[in-house]
Amino acid sequence: MTAEQFADRHIGPDPGDERRMLETVGYSSVDELMDAAIPEVIRWHGALDLPAPASEREAIAELRALAARNTVAVSMIGLGYHGTHTPAVIRRNVLENPAWYTAYTPYQPEISQGRLEALLNFQTMVTDLTGLATANASMLDEGTAAAEAMTLARRASRSKSPVYVVDADALPQTIAVITSRAEPLGIDVRVLDLGRDELPAEFFGLHLQYPGASGAVRDQASLVEAAHRVGALVCVAADLLALTLLRPPGEVGADIAAGTTQRFGVPMGFGGPHAGYLAVRAGLERMLPGRLVGVSKDADGNPAYRLALQTREQHIRREKATSNICTAQVLLAVMAGMYAVYHGPDGLRAIARRTHGMAARLAAGLRAGGVTVADVAFFDTLTVTVPGRAAEVVAAAARRNVNLRLVDADRVGISCDETTTQAHLAAVWAAFGVPHFDGAADEVLPADLRRTSDFLTHPVFHRHRSETAMLRYLRRLADFDYALDRGMIPLGSCTMKLNATTEMEAITWPEFAHLHPFAPPEQTAGYRELIGQLEDWLAEVTGYDAVSVQPNAGSQGELAGLLAIRAYHRQRGEGHRDVCLIPSSAHGTNAASAVMAGMRVVVVGCDADGNVDLVDLDTKIDKHRDDLAAIMVTYPSTHGVYETGIASLCAKVHDAGGQVYVDGANLNALVGFAKPGRFGADLSHLNLHKTFCIPHGGGGPGVGPVAVRAHLAPFLPGDPAGARSDGRPAISAANHGSAGILPIPWAYLRMMGAEGLARATGTAVLAANYVAARLRDHFPVLYAGNKGLVAHECILDLRPLSRATGVSVDDVAKRLIDYGFHAPTMSFPVAGTLMVEPTESEDLAELDRFCDAMIAIRAEIDKVASGEWPAGNNPLCNAPHTAAMVSADEWPYPYPRSVGAYPAGVDRAGRYWPPVRRIDGAYGDRNLVCSCPSPEAFED
Amino acid sequence: MTAEQFADRHIGPDPGDERRMLETVGYSSVDELMDAAIPEVIRWHGALDLPAPASEREAIAELRALAARNTVAVSMIGLGYHGTHTPAVIRRNVLENPAWYTAYTPYQPEISQGRLEALLNFQTMVTDLTGLATANASMLDEGTAAAEAMTLARRASRSKSPVYVVDADALPQTIAVITSRAEPLGIDVRVLDLGRDELPAEFFGLHLQYPGASGAVRDQASLVEAAHRVGALVCVAADLLALTLLRPPGEVGADIAAGTTQRFGVPMGFGGPHAGYLAVRAGLERMLPGRLVGVSKDADGNPAYRLALQTREQHIRREKATSNICTAQVLLAVMAGMYAVYHGPDGLRAIARRTHGMAARLAAGLRAGGVTVADVAFFDTLTVTVPGRAAEVVAAAARRNVNLRLVDADRVGISCDETTTQAHLAAVWAAFGVPHFDGAADEVLPADLRRTSDFLTHPVFHRHRSETAMLRYLRRLADFDYALDRGMIPLGSCTMKLNATTEMEAITWPEFAHLHPFAPPEQTAGYRELIGQLEDWLAEVTGYDAVSVQPNAGSQGELAGLLAIRAYHRQRGEGHRDVCLIPSSAHGTNAASAVMAGMRVVVVGCDADGNVDLVDLDTKIDKHRDDLAAIMVTYPSTHGVYETGIASLCAKVHDAGGQVYVDGANLNALVGFAKPGRFGADLSHLNLHKTFCIPHGGGGPGVGPVAVRAHLAPFLPGDPAGARSDGRPAISAANHGSAGILPIPWAYLRMMGAEGLARATGTAVLAANYVAARLRDHFPVLYAGNKGLVAHECILDLRPLSRATGVSVDDVAKRLIDYGFHAPTMSFPVAGTLMVEPTESEDLAELDRFCDAMIAIRAEIDKVASGEWPAGNNPLCNAPHTAAMVSADEWPYPYPRSVGAYPAGVDRAGRYWPPVRRIDGAYGDRNLVCSCPSPEAFED
Repeated sequence: MTAEQFADRHIGPDPGDERRMLETVGYSSVDELMDAAIPEVIRWHGALDLPAPASEREAIAELRALAARNTVAVSMIGLGYHGTHTPAVIRRNVLENPAWYTAYTPYQPEISQGRLEALLNFQTMVTDLTGLATANASMLDEGTAAAEAMTLARRASRSKSPVYVVDADALPQTIAVITSRAEPLGIDVRVLDLGRDELPAEFFGLHLQYPGASGAVRDQASLVEAAHRVGALVCVAADLLALTLLRPPGEVGADIAAGTTQRFGVPMGFGGPHAGYLAVRAGLERMLPGRLVGVSKDADGNPAYRLALQTREQHIRREKATSNICTAQVLLAVMAGMYAVYHGPDGLRAIARRTHGMAARLAAGLRAGGVTVADVAFFDTLTVTVPGRAAEVVAAAARRNVNLRLVDADRVGISCDETTTQAHLAAVWAAFGVPHFDGAADEVLPADLRRTSDFLTHPVFHRHRSETAMLRYLRRLADFDYALDRGMIPLGSCTMKLNATTEMEAITWPEFAHLHPFAPPEQTAGYRELIGQLEDWLAEVTGYDAVSVQPNAGSQGELAGLLAIRAYHRQRGEGHRDVCLIPSSAHGTNAASAVMAGMRVVVVGCDADGNVDLVDLDTKIDKHRDDLAAIMVTYPSTHGVYETGIASLCAKVHDAGGQVYVDGANLNALVGFAKPGRFGADLSHLNLHKTFCIPHGGGGPGVGPVAVRAHLAPFLPGDPAGARSDGRPAISAANHGSAGILPIPWAYLRMMGAEGLARATGTAVLAANYVAARLRDHFPVLYAGNKGLVAHECILDLRPLSRATGVSVDDVAKRLIDYGFHAPTMSFPVAGTLMVEPTESEDLAELDRFCDAMIAIRAEIDKVASGEWPAGNNPLCNAPHTAAMVSADEWPYPYPRSVGAYPAGVDRAGRYWPPVRRIDGAYGDRNLVCSCPSPEAFED
Repeated sequence: MTAEQFADRHIGPDPGDERRMLETVGYSSVDELMDAAIPEVIRWHGALDLPAPASEREAIAELRALAARNTVAVSMIGLGYHGTHTPAVIRRNVLENPAWYTAYTPYQPEISQGRLEALLNFQTMVTDLTGLATANASMLDEGTAAAEAMTLARRASRSKSPVYVVDADALPQTIAVITSRAEPLGIDVRVLDLGRDELPAEFFGLHLQYPGASGAVRDQASLVEAAHRVGALVCVAADLLALTLLRPPGEVGADIAAGTTQRFGVPMGFGGPHAGYLAVRAGLERMLPGRLVGVSKDADGNPAYRLALQTREQHIRREKATSNICTAQVLLAVMAGMYAVYHGPDGLRAIARRTHGMAARLAAGLRAGGVTVADVAFFDTLTVTVPGRAAEVVAAAARRNVNLRLVDADRVGISCDETTTQAHLAAVWAAFGVPHFDGAADEVLPADLRRTSDFLTHPVFHRHRSETAMLRYLRRLADFDYALDRGMIPLGSCTMKLNATTEMEAITWPEFAHLHPFAPPEQTAGYRELIGQLEDWLAEVTGYDAVSVQPNAGSQGELAGLLAIRAYHRQRGEGHRDVCLIPSSAHGTNAASAVMAGMRVVVVGCDADGNVDLVDLDTKIDKHRDDLAAIMVTYPSTHGVYETGIASLCAKVHDAGGQVYVDGANLNALVGFAKPGRFGADLSHLNLHKTFCIPHGGGGPGVGPVAVRAHLAPFLPGDPAGARSDGRPAISAANHGSAGILPIPWAYLRMMGAEGLARATGTAVLAANYVAARLRDHFPVLYAGNKGLVAHECILDLRPLSRATGVSVDDVAKRLIDYGFHAPTMSFPVAGTLMVEPTESEDLAELDRFCDAMIAIRAEIDKVASGEWPAGNNPLCNAPHTAAMVSADEWPYPYPRSVGAYPAGVDRAGRYWPPVRRIDGAYGDRNLVCSCPSPEAFED
């Protein structure tokens, strides 16, 4: 009478598949395979102490019970988080649609044109609204966007001053994040009341909030001029909805704008995820951090989108990077961009006017009742003075199901938004004890600050006004893309496993979606219990003692971890320890994060087997013994190998007084079999969007919790909104980071249980070894550990073939599109190779389809080698083939159309056709265009 | 400060579009157009008395409040409705996916291969489980399936007896529907206790329930033999889950099986919609009513699916039809079939065993506690005797949140299902006052009734066991199909308008999805209020006095209406009135329904303008004056014209003592401008899946309420479960029909309000006249009313072109696929024409895209006419072009590939490619295959 096990649905291979895979690999059971693969020195033989696995229905029932312990009140707290109506057509067809949410980062642009177009809409929306030249494809949140603006300003400023001036009317959590980021970089943050305090004589940058946290809308022109006079750059953290009515930062001379797009249809989610934004004036675009989408052209000369200027990115620049961001909030940026597409400029203006009208009416009613409202211009937020009564008023409002902001004992903050109704105003008036107000209230925006310029004039913001048109636009773009709902995405180190529907289900429930991060604790009991359980389970899985889910991306988890190490050494009086050892095989983000944490990066070499060179390690430790802060290693290594030297490595570093940071990118090879916190590491960050099933969303959201042993626990991130005084850093703007998507890993852990998690790990390792075994005769498999086994991924070496034939890794990757696959990871960690991580979710049929495709491609390469096909004109270098190409009247290629269109084994009826041919990325970088191209560009 | 209007999202053209469309049509405003188009004699000038329109969020909030007034208890009532777990991957990716739910009936099979495959899976599942040869693509519910089995048996039986024997242990609602259907057909239904009563000497058919409503599993072999001895056919209404463990009807010699597939993952929904099923032994397949999917081949000889044996259908056979069914429950059949695909035979057996185990354990516990459980074999349902205490036990269980069935004062029925847990058993034991039972309980199925044969051996039921594999299979099939999420489906008389996400949202909430139709009234207050409001609003919109939502398809609404007319005449002592006048232009279903209601059909001719020939009408009325029961007319006419003679027609029929039935298929041209109940009609059925936004679901579900004036209200459908005694007929198995989808039209009416509904009608009429104006010079537009205007659809006459060139309506329809469209209605109501209904939801860009395509096709026809392209080998007769065809190595056609692949104006990047070429339907009818073909059939 046992109920169905979720693990049987999560894990692709069934028992028969598993048997056949084991036969190929040469083991009689998964246990035997794992015993052989994993070094005994790290092996953990217990059972994870997790609750017995729940069925899908039981997990949903428990989530409903947790949800019921949250209270969805009317939020008028503001401070960068506002109620918003997600258009139902966008919620269902983007946020709840696997074609959007299971997509990977658009590194293969030919099969990502849909989300790239959606991101270009987002960038166009941001540049139009801010009045600046170039915006990136989103930031993690407003706080980190503002911090990135600070470092950008420092790089671009001609001032040598270390001083960064911050408006005291900035959002408190933004000030916290800026301050936390500034400290290790030696930046001196001065928070000033700019209406009263003098600007310092020298500073490199100025951060303004517009409108201010208090709601005040002030003319910033003279401050901008003053900053520019001393060579400082100005960043305006601006509310995009307000900018539909107010003069935008670009028109007052700001250099940078930063902020959030949350109120453009993205639920508050108890703090995230939302898409932050960052925009710059002309001349700064090549200094932008993060992802940037640009227009280029394909092999036919047609416009095509792809990530622009990728050489800016941390994985290229490593320790020379000026930011460690590796991802964006793509799914949320798509939603926010689509909100603008659906409403258009007139719709946005109407929403802004209505919001402002509510605030104006609210103020008029309060004033009519004798209450003092701050006498400044405002858009949506009021600061109201009620001497000594603020707490009482806030409590009275809460009893009416309305949350207000307690500024201090005398002042209350109130924000209106798209969801505000007359009934909400009535509740607020009642809470203040003033009579209901029926009079008129005019717009109160000062004439000289009103926006006069057009925005969102591109046709895309005008053509999708009906739900039918919007639905079809979303479908059209989704159809351009390849995501996990079409087939395997075998990306090494990115663990593209199943994102189960049941895991995704709760995130759109109102009780999880509509909570403000600063809502009173009694309204968020369910959330806090869920987060506490998740942190406990993650600690159990990893063997650490404490976990913080605040970091909203892996890069942020790294930074949080390194800052904890830094603070630990300081607390012990060893603040001089600043050397971070990083193996040459490491992901570039490691090095970039170390720099951001104020550390010096020292690279440790690898040996011929791809393992950390323990001799070189000794040398580097000796050389930096006194300054050694930490080592950052990935385990299993980025080469996909269980290195046997790990325990010895940990010991050596510890002996020298350093801390051991294990990057959790490859945790999917360890869960249930080894615990980093038990085999010698002091801390790790985890990627909940890899191992724990948060979908990649086309390039975000992610969650990168930091997990530490007890001695580092005091240095975990603190609450950005309040608990700064204890010295903990603010890593994200919201205390629980991207809380809104934490039900996903919670459900995964809850449904898998200890046994299911271990089965998943074993199956993932079996699958990688199966692929390696099947492909070894066709492509050399680089690196292996014990008994020639790989861990959960394997590296296929194409270099000999490339040298012999000119067929590149890129050619193979693009040809895989014709075979119906997303390419594996290209040229990381070794240039000229492909890294394949099949994960446990792919069944044997799909693994075989992939292996068959790779073997067929090898045969195609052989035809180039034999001269049957010319090196510069063959199905590989001409890949991917579009439908337009193979059906063109002319066919100028030396192989049959059918070879281009339907290589061996392809599902003819269900063939995925990319919308563009191979994209010339360099052309777009030379001719940078990062907003929507005119429709004429697409005409034949 | 007005909030956004939903009507602005529902209606496609914006004010600018509307202006341009009016210019083309030659009117200055929609009001002016409507004044010109609609005859004043029917025009209604008031404003509909409906609540002011709610915004989307307000409507959702109101629905949440209604939902909160329903109570989701544990249902152990049984009687054909069982708790079930809808796999989340199926719910999200089918039931909540517009690619599935906005599809039309697969009349264009080349662009419907996905749902046709899904339906073939369903048919295979039914035939395998029942052990019979052929199953159709679903029935409306178990009750109507059983009634259709009865009429099938009558046609097929060699007995001339009018007697149909029904097992007294059949479901009560099935008996009610059978009885209601039998009476007008002169069938004598005898309900007998087959364990006790003697079979009559002569009868044509026998209906058995397996397991019985009481839960009893009895050997039916001797009954089957007895029936066959007198030439009677046997229908077994069998539970498919039980058939995974029990010997199936086909193996005991049954001729027919009927039932429901609800418990295969389809929520109970307070009674519907679910997919009923009907299966027959070899030799009866050509007598099956309803839709049947079969395998045929396309122009390349590849296997391809399409509807088989369509000449059986009512729209072809009209008054010679033996069933009036025109639809199926496609969306629900897809879900049920996918449930079998996901679980496979082993999974289904495990669910059945677990369910049976729960029942066995429940019985053991009750017996151990001294309670008497009926001493028969059972599968999932027990009948328990507690003398005089039954009501008390049922109440005690209800207090524990468990619903049991009150059989009578002494007996309680209890059904277990997939969702039953140990906790539920404990609650039941407690309600009976017996101690908790911890002992063992074996399976109690009799050995000689156990199933020994295999089922679901086809690979499709074995390959999709992981969620990843299932997700991809659903995506692959969805991608084969063309639905409203890709583009316009301009089907005359089918009103394929927007199915808004907000309208769809509530149907999957547990409070609407998980209610048993016989749940106690105190648990269903929200549902009943919603249904009451909906019926009131529909009455207001149509001008009638009473509405019943029981009919779960338009055809059932027709039958309900005609039975009401029949009962009315009988009550007045004029039971001899049995002539139903039907214009020659009517949909065939009208005639078929009249026959099923025991009426004689007399056809009235049409004049040259397509209107009812009032002279012929006079003649027919004179001839049948004494026997005249009714006239059935569609308004606006099926020709898409507002006939001016309608008022006079009504008067003539009334003068002769007849009733006027207005078919509501074209109500989308009337709402807000004319009320049938006020311009002379006595009754109508409505199609909530046309005018009121229930999505077509690929060919169902539908809802066909019957709306009547006060004198007919006493004859509306009665509750099939109880209130039969007052003589009202049972039209569907559940009292509120497909209650589960009624939140959709409720939300539509609630959000549109009076003004929005009238705007929609005006825009729909404007759009049809715009299309007529743009295409008139290229294709003659047949029929028009006042001032040359059409109503909401227009007929394009291809006959002259076809005669001149050989290009058929079919060729144009298939060529439209290449242009990215679903074809309009073909050859109805006039052979050789296309009927276009654009609806109000298409914006001007899409209307123009369609008109441009039609004009381009006209130019292509001209090339055939001029001889530039041969008549038998051109892009029209070779359409649709698949990607495989246009990329083949050989191109043996006399026009360029690019003309086949990308005709003028087509979106090159987003081109929809059908998976198969034109399908040879006749081949499949000659070689009938109605279950999944072997995978080898698809090999190249």
